[in-house]
Amino acid sequence: MAYSLGPNQYGKAEVRMVTVTRSGSTHSLQDLTVSTSLRGSLEATHLTGDNSDVVATDTQKNTVFAFAKEEPVGEIEDFALRLGRHFVSSFSQITGARVLIDSHGWDRINQHSFARGSSEVRTTAVTVSGDQHWVVSGLRDLVVLKTTGSEFHGYPKDKYTTLPETTDRILATAVTARWRYQGAALDWSASFSAIRSILLTTFAEKHSLSLQQTLYAMGAAVVETRPEVAEIRLSMPNKHHFVVDLSPFGLENDNEVFYAADRPYGLIEGSVIRDDAEDEGDAWYSLPMF
Amino acid sequence: MAYSLGPNQYGKAEVRMVTVTRSGSTHSLQDLTVSTSLRGSLEATHLTGDNSDVVATDTQKNTVFAFAKEEPVGEIEDFALRLGRHFVSSFSQITGARVLIDSHGWDRINQHSFARGSSEVRTTAVTVSGDQHWVVSGLRDLVVLKTTGSEFHGYPKDKYTTLPETTDRILATAVTARWRYQGAALDWSASFSAIRSILLTTFAEKHSLSLQQTLYAMGAAVVETRPEVAEIRLSMPNKHHFVVDLSPFGLENDNEVFYAADRPYGLIEGSVIRDDAEDEGDAWYSLPMF
Amino acid sequence: MAYSLGPNQYGKAEVRMVTVTRSGSTHSLQDLTVSTSLRGSLEATHLTGDNSDVVATDTQKNTVFAFAKEEPVGEIEDFALRLGRHFVSSFSQITGARVLIDSHGWDRINQHSFARGSSEVRTTAVTVSGDQHWVVSGLRDLVVLKTTGSEFHGYPKDKYTTLPETTDRILATAVTARWRYQGAALDWSASFSAIRSILLTTFAEKHSLSLQQTLYAMGAAVVETRPEVAEIRLSMPNKHHFVVDLSPFGLENDNEVFYAADRPYGLIEGSVIRDDAEDEGDAWYSLPMF
Amino acid sequence: MAYSLGPNQYGKAEVRMVTVTRSGSTHSLQDLTVSTSLRGSLEATHLTGDNSDVVATDTQKNTVFAFAKEEPVGEIEDFALRLGRHFVSSFSQITGARVLIDSHGWDRINQHSFARGSSEVRTTAVTVSGDQHWVVSGLRDLVVLKTTGSEFHGYPKDKYTTLPETTDRILATAVTARWRYQGAALDWSASFSAIRSILLTTFAEKHSLSLQQTLYAMGAAVVETRPEVAEIRLSMPNKHHFVVDLSPFGLENDNEVFYAADRPYGLIEGSVIRDDAEDEGDAWYSLPMF
Repeated sequence: MAYSLGPNQYGKAEVRMVTVTRSGSTHSLQDLTVSTSLRGSLEATHLTGDNSDVVATDTQKNTVFAFAKEEPVGEIEDFALRLGRHFVSSFSQITGARVLIDSHGWDRINQHSFARGSSEVRTTAVTVSGDQHWVVSGLRDLVVLKTTGSEFHGYPKDKYTTLPETTDRILATAVTARWRYQGAALDWSASFSAIRSILLTTFAEKHSLSLQQTLYAMGAAVVETRPEVAEIRLSMPNKHHFVVDLSPFGLENDNEVFYAADRPYGLIEGSVIRDDAEDEGDAWYSLPMF
Repeated sequence: MAYSLGPNQYGKAEVRMVTVTRSGSTHSLQDLTVSTSLRGSLEATHLTGDNSDVVATDTQKNTVFAFAKEEPVGEIEDFALRLGRHFVSSFSQITGARVLIDSHGWDRINQHSFARGSSEVRTTAVTVSGDQHWVVSGLRDLVVLKTTGSEFHGYPKDKYTTLPETTDRILATAVTARWRYQGAALDWSASFSAIRSILLTTFAEKHSLSLQQTLYAMGAAVVETRPEVAEIRLSMPNKHHFVVDLSPFGLENDNEVFYAADRPYGLIEGSVIRDDAEDEGDAWYSLPMF
Repeated sequence: MAYSLGPNQYGKAEVRMVTVTRSGSTHSLQDLTVSTSLRGSLEATHLTGDNSDVVATDTQKNTVFAFAKEEPVGEIEDFALRLGRHFVSSFSQITGARVLIDSHGWDRINQHSFARGSSEVRTTAVTVSGDQHWVVSGLRDLVVLKTTGSEFHGYPKDKYTTLPETTDRILATAVTARWRYQGAALDWSASFSAIRSILLTTFAEKHSLSLQQTLYAMGAAVVETRPEVAEIRLSMPNKHHFVVDLSPFGLENDNEVFYAADRPYGLIEGSVIRDDAEDEGDAWYSLPMF
Repeated sequence: MAYSLGPNQYGKAEVRMVTVTRSGSTHSLQDLTVSTSLRGSLEATHLTGDNSDVVATDTQKNTVFAFAKEEPVGEIEDFALRLGRHFVSSFSQITGARVLIDSHGWDRINQHSFARGSSEVRTTAVTVSGDQHWVVSGLRDLVVLKTTGSEFHGYPKDKYTTLPETTDRILATAVTARWRYQGAALDWSASFSAIRSILLTTFAEKHSLSLQQTLYAMGAAVVETRPEVAEIRLSMPNKHHFVVDLSPFGLENDNEVFYAADRPYGLIEGSVIRDDAEDEGDAWYSLPMF
């Protein structure tokens, strides 16, 4: 044969699971979207359709639901680790597992009622390879906007440049962030809250000369203050808000009325890496780079 | 001719406008999606392509932006009324206008920075016909869930019925509500907040024997306590959360682990009308019934 | 009580059903999204939570699946009629039923393999009230574009008008059409194909002075040639394609390079009614007006 | 500093461009979504907000439009190469460029009118690094289904396995494929058509014992017959169609009535690599792995 099977994985995607925990008459809620994928010695099914090594994706889904009952789900990172380790340790042909969990937030109304929070999602991507594991957590769709404190000028002008320079513009973005953890015995929830807060505060308070500068400042602030973070990768669309030209109507528009454009948008992607970061191993395997 | 032009309207849809208001160094933000549509003597353009009566949709868009500068936007109901009255009073052939505004919420981070709130949207639909007007305000995508306090039983069983009765289930929905205002000199914002709060509280606290009962209770509580509301229409999908059968794994599932289904979903639609409501006139013209 | 229950209905929405029919080794496929809703004497469940009149939405879903097996589905209009009549005739408290069916197209690859066609959807909305019924069929997301043969000028200019007149522009839209049938013993499929063809051909061939003119011509051509159509309602967004200004780069743009905008868009809605159309009865009850 | 800027890129995403070419009265249409991103020596803007090396994303957008006028767009691969080479050769600090183009298909109605085809998209991802370049083309949202000729059995059973084995099921998926080209002087369009046809035919005709087997067969058929393809990566969700249990209604369901589930879905991802493939270089840099 002049060709062969390359990288591959398979699993069950987007298992929508809601769990309820009761403490007296006060209920708690976890609303998760869980995706599992497995890797290993899987040539047989690809080449001949022999499925004796294929842990069915339906079984993976059942395992997610059963695990949620057998032990409290707890932190999404811990739940993902338990699932990933189970698949790798239970099936000799499965040498690697990746578990992605999205956590959707709800605000409490009363003891047993809740309202869906923002569309922001807390995420984790856990990889287990043999007896090693990596945790990349993050968030996405954290939509933020500042009405001032953002400039953009000094860029090169070529024959295709028409953009006017500005010393005051709206800056808006939907942050996707993923950070790779290092070290052990982490308080996932506390770390997430602290990092999210740093990202928000830095976006809000850092005067911006470019979205790149803002992105880097956000990442640097995280790496600088959170030793458990080896590196952070950020993807931040520049959601353009254009000042509407009201001069045809005899009106001046002093950054008061904006048109919020859907497309196209700028897309700024970057990362900040700790100098002495632990080796990344398989942490990012098959994840989007940004 | 054996046929003729029937009902029609035209306009500009989904103008995405963000306005910034400054009070010293504290900025405020309004994030609106505005749609306008006009009605009137419009046979000419339909039958012959003579556009001398067609206020261009581009002009309608420009008017939205210009009006936002000429005077502070203020409440969305007032802004919609100003726009609607402008079109009807400025063009003799335009006898009716409908202005829809969606308001998207942002939470303040600091004096000039904001984070996007939930996907819930505050809405208004204002109709101007000649010198009359009607205001139908509302909200949509208010996603709520209660983990207990919901039963469903006693329904008829025919040969196609397999649903087991339950005295304890998750009840989840995404509320779309539209209420028709009556009377004058309203504090739109205060009324909205009060109504939203009533809807939330009633959903949370009312023990539910059916989603219909919950819907009616929510609407009735609004009509009962808010004299400015002539009627309210509600559309509430029953977002099913199924108890996962864990018995094949030797596990009992005491309403702890649920599968959140996307489709199909129940869809409960209804309305509550005040006995002495003002006449609805054109208030609902071309709006979805629920 | 100073208020009461107004219009209401309930049902199961978006049952995704695929059926396979075999004729020897040649298979046929129907891919449908079915929504049912029922109306009638439903005060009890709303006011007290007594569900003895509530045909469960789960039962409605089961009925859809069972009916698809008991008899070949056939035309979506006939299937919807069978379902609607079943609910009304089987339950005395149910006086009305509405069945919506979307049919998703697939193109044949071989005897048992298919590729999904365009996103265009064939639709029907059947209403049964007592022993009467109405059929409103249609299509949506028929996206069409013409690169010439479209003008727009002669519209009124006010202080907010900036749009330049044009005698040659791209005209693009996504047609939603619904037509109400009258008469009996119809060949639904043949009628649909003929109407769809008329809509397409008229859009393509009719020189356009406004999208309103195009809309009316499309509707009129249907009513004129298809006696089974009592009226037709059309909703056609004007999906703007703007000529990109290339003059800053020393380039002329003779309608060659366009920017396709997402939002805002024009929205043209209208209808054509046969003079001697049968009475509409409940045909449009709770359907979007356009 | 204990940390530093890691991998990064930036650009303009989703420029929606439609171009019209006229040959007498016969018009042709290209409907493209173009995204550009640049890499290089970009520390300054990230660390200090000095933008003297930042080719503005607005300039990138302008370049896309201007290039479409300066020379006929032609094949999307060639257009992407021209754009990528322009950025790298025009700006010394820009050492790499990635151009993504989606091409949306339209079917001709007449000489100047078109109807939107399926939601399937033809794609290319071109990378230019210094004087090297790589082309990864593909397609996505090619939705296919076979009503028979698919089995799934022989998989391991553990305590969480409940899936029944089947020797006849519906197999449905939405193919995303990306293949890396090697060699030179390619006829991109002919190659695309041939590969698409191979993918379709293999899906339809290959008897399937697992979706993995189908995926591999599809990829292998491409690599085997198309020497210009160094490797191909495929991502194929298993869009489950479950046989509805009609036994409660006394009906047998012999693979006739199915419920099409939205989520969860299986997700099968894999690749086929030619043994003597040219080195991949930066071809896949920052692309999703599958």
